[in-house]
Amino acid sequence: MTPYRELEKHFKRISLLEEAIGVLDWDTAAMMPKGGASARAEQIAALRLMRHEALTAAVLSDLLDGAEEAAGLDGWKAANLREMRQEWRHAIALRRDLVEALSKASSACEMEWRGARAGDDFAAVAPALERVLGLVREVAAAKAEAFGCDAYDALLDAYEPGGRAAEIEVLFAELEAFLADFLGRVVERQRSLPAIRPLVGPFPVESQRRLGLKLMEVLGFDFDHGRLDVSPHPFCGGTSEDVRVTTRYDEDDFSRSLMAVLHETGHALYKRGLPAAWRHQPVGRARGTSLHESQSLIIEMQACRSREFIEFAAPLMREAFAGAGPAWEADNLHRLFTRVEAGAIRVDADEVTYSLHVILRTRLEKAMIAGDLKVCGLPGAWKEGMRSLLGYTPRNDREGCLQDIHWFDGTFAYFPTYTLGAMSAAQLFEEACRADTNILPGIALGDFRPLLRWLGANVHEKASSLETRELLVKATGKPLDAAALARHLERRYLSGA
Amino acid sequence: MTPYRELEKHFKRISLLEEAIGVLDWDTAAMMPKGGASARAEQIAALRLMRHEALTAAVLSDLLDGAEEAAGLDGWKAANLREMRQEWRHAIALRRDLVEALSKASSACEMEWRGARAGDDFAAVAPALERVLGLVREVAAAKAEAFGCDAYDALLDAYEPGGRAAEIEVLFAELEAFLADFLGRVVERQRSLPAIRPLVGPFPVESQRRLGLKLMEVLGFDFDHGRLDVSPHPFCGGTSEDVRVTTRYDEDDFSRSLMAVLHETGHALYKRGLPAAWRHQPVGRARGTSLHESQSLIIEMQACRSREFIEFAAPLMREAFAGAGPAWEADNLHRLFTRVEAGAIRVDADEVTYSLHVILRTRLEKAMIAGDLKVCGLPGAWKEGMRSLLGYTPRNDREGCLQDIHWFDGTFAYFPTYTLGAMSAAQLFEEACRADTNILPGIALGDFRPLLRWLGANVHEKASSLETRELLVKATGKPLDAAALARHLERRYLSGA
Repeated sequence: MTPYRELEKHFKRISLLEEAIGVLDWDTAAMMPKGGASARAEQIAALRLMRHEALTAAVLSDLLDGAEEAAGLDGWKAANLREMRQEWRHAIALRRDLVEALSKASSACEMEWRGARAGDDFAAVAPALERVLGLVREVAAAKAEAFGCDAYDALLDAYEPGGRAAEIEVLFAELEAFLADFLGRVVERQRSLPAIRPLVGPFPVESQRRLGLKLMEVLGFDFDHGRLDVSPHPFCGGTSEDVRVTTRYDEDDFSRSLMAVLHETGHALYKRGLPAAWRHQPVGRARGTSLHESQSLIIEMQACRSREFIEFAAPLMREAFAGAGPAWEADNLHRLFTRVEAGAIRVDADEVTYSLHVILRTRLEKAMIAGDLKVCGLPGAWKEGMRSLLGYTPRNDREGCLQDIHWFDGTFAYFPTYTLGAMSAAQLFEEACRADTNILPGIALGDFRPLLRWLGANVHEKASSLETRELLVKATGKPLDAAALARHLERRYLSGA
Repeated sequence: MTPYRELEKHFKRISLLEEAIGVLDWDTAAMMPKGGASARAEQIAALRLMRHEALTAAVLSDLLDGAEEAAGLDGWKAANLREMRQEWRHAIALRRDLVEALSKASSACEMEWRGARAGDDFAAVAPALERVLGLVREVAAAKAEAFGCDAYDALLDAYEPGGRAAEIEVLFAELEAFLADFLGRVVERQRSLPAIRPLVGPFPVESQRRLGLKLMEVLGFDFDHGRLDVSPHPFCGGTSEDVRVTTRYDEDDFSRSLMAVLHETGHALYKRGLPAAWRHQPVGRARGTSLHESQSLIIEMQACRSREFIEFAAPLMREAFAGAGPAWEADNLHRLFTRVEAGAIRVDADEVTYSLHVILRTRLEKAMIAGDLKVCGLPGAWKEGMRSLLGYTPRNDREGCLQDIHWFDGTFAYFPTYTLGAMSAAQLFEEACRADTNILPGIALGDFRPLLRWLGANVHEKASSLETRELLVKATGKPLDAAALARHLERRYLSGA
């Protein structure tokens, strides 16, 4: 067997292990009774440790060298080898005891955080967060040394391979400058229009679920290879052959649950669209976190909050909830689904203010990783940042720095990928609609096949065969910038398109 | 670290891996969309292979020797070491390629079997079954050589540690002799009574589910540590901290679904009752398949089909289905739940004829393992056996040798444990009711605490600290025999108790 073939075998096994972890993670969120939590944490930790051991097995180093020295690998195999090397270098950079210490500290801190958030008590979780941050900084330092890059970039690379904080800073500065003026204009414009008519519930869970399933079907979700269930936070999990979408229901407001279903279905379609032949190889995976987010945002933000789609979906919504009257007209529904308002909570934010939430968090976590911001300074820095970026001062830490699970569960350098995803979504969708003029008319009829054909050919089927930048350039003719997102926001929020 | 401590660490990891497999198995049966099947099979095979590798790791042999040579282990630790050795010797006896070949052949044969059973076409699955049988015989031969025992005993030992076919033969001969005469008398007696009034459905699934949940609660099932779901074949899976019970519903007949829930809850209570301190060690596991089955049969057959329990449950059944009239009286319900009739299908059989189904299968599989019965001779031998044991000749192979998944999925030497379980259940329950006279009056009031206290102290909390025979002798004062089961059957079916 050639070194490359041996590597394929080895990585297939790692992939199967990751899929098993994916199923357990889904079960934890969607099915597990609460008494199963501590045993489940141990099961998942054991599988993760096995994954780390498999990725750092002594034999891999020689196999990777051997495969790289041997010539003659074609494009996908060469890319696969590159991705194997990428996974390996992330794993090998860390001592096993550091991996275990961070895993334990993160689990403990996440538990503390749940109580601290509920009780608005930052001080209660601060010591645990300090321990996590200390260990994350050790991880960042170890990887930075191994990769020869900055500490923050070393963390970012795990979510956004090849991503660089310096480039993100340029993009974010551009967007921030645009939004500083734009947000005020949007709010003013929305205020000048007649008041939006509220939808009055209750909206029964079963009706919401049926509407979600119906729209998933419209989007082309294949229920032979996936399910829709309930979890406290919506997500898309499971595996490519069996995609598990979740949402949560609020009987007073169906819009958030429904948009969560559409968003997660965007992730699901990407997963399902990855090339089956490479399913268990690193090159067959989705290309990084920002591209994944772009696929969910293309479906949710670009397509499903468009006037075209709301016109299509309005009768289905009326039918689902026996809605009638002017509040249920497409125009009012579209205004509801595109309302902009500065608020405290990121996950409730509209697509205009969302990026400002992300810019704040990115700034703060960079300072924490650099050692310039201590845990004790976080609540103050958060409030000051919210005031200056969004003009909104959180009333407490619960609607401030305690709101997100990131950081407390050890996730640093993930936040910027949300807004990189929004920029990528706008840039890809703009190009898709230009390249195939049937896409928007299709969406207006509930026919997503033209859009999915383009996304399939330009994103899904590429998997990780191209680097992110390369993929975007091939698909849209240019590297990522903030201009398409700005154009999209102007079109939608200043002219009501 | 002492060799023993190292072994504990190693086996904890194996246990966590097994728990993960348990969750995946449950998901496969209860949640997975059909398109996920082939990827799931690969995930589970990968985890099973990792388990086999961990159990055959080179280091284990020395650690086991070292721990056995070191003196001073107390009772539970010594028993734990014995159980570790037991698991290890089963794993180490087999070459990895044989394990993989059997796993693949079994999966393939199981697939063929589904079609063959649906189409009543034994010839279609015969070649695949021949391959499986060939490999199982190789496994049996390898283990027999390693353990120094008969081939069938070597297979039996995996389900029933220390079990011997020769001893089972004596017990089964005793039972068969008893049943030969008894079955006729019961059928005659039941015929002499007024006809049983049928319950007329439909019985809505949701009402059945609620009744099942209610009775699980009565039995003391802890829903913080478990769930009830639906799968094509009822089972009890998951882990001790998170027990997953399943059933399937038939709107024309609620009795089978309900009895399945009670049966599986018996398994679940055993799992939950295992000592938490030893949860991830071999000694902390349930003691073999026959004792596991005894715990489900004590709940289903001994307790819940008793007149005492049916009197208690009758009003709940009437309430669940708005049942009224003489058919819903406790006396008629009890007769329904204890009706005896020779039939073709094991899983539909009553507790009198069930053992005859098992005796037939045990006889046939012993002959197959010994090489005395070929696959091509199976359909004929089955029909002849059914005729002579039950006086019923199957009309085709679908209600003959194609009915059970065992054999086709590679499971041989499992069948006898069903009837060993029924014998153990009768013997344990008889002694429990003698030792604590509150048990039967408790059951009549829906209070299972006295019964569970006795089972907890004498079975559940013992886990695998004692060998099966030792456990039964300590609990009941004698080794297993068929007499208690015969007494139970006589009491219930000849005097209507």
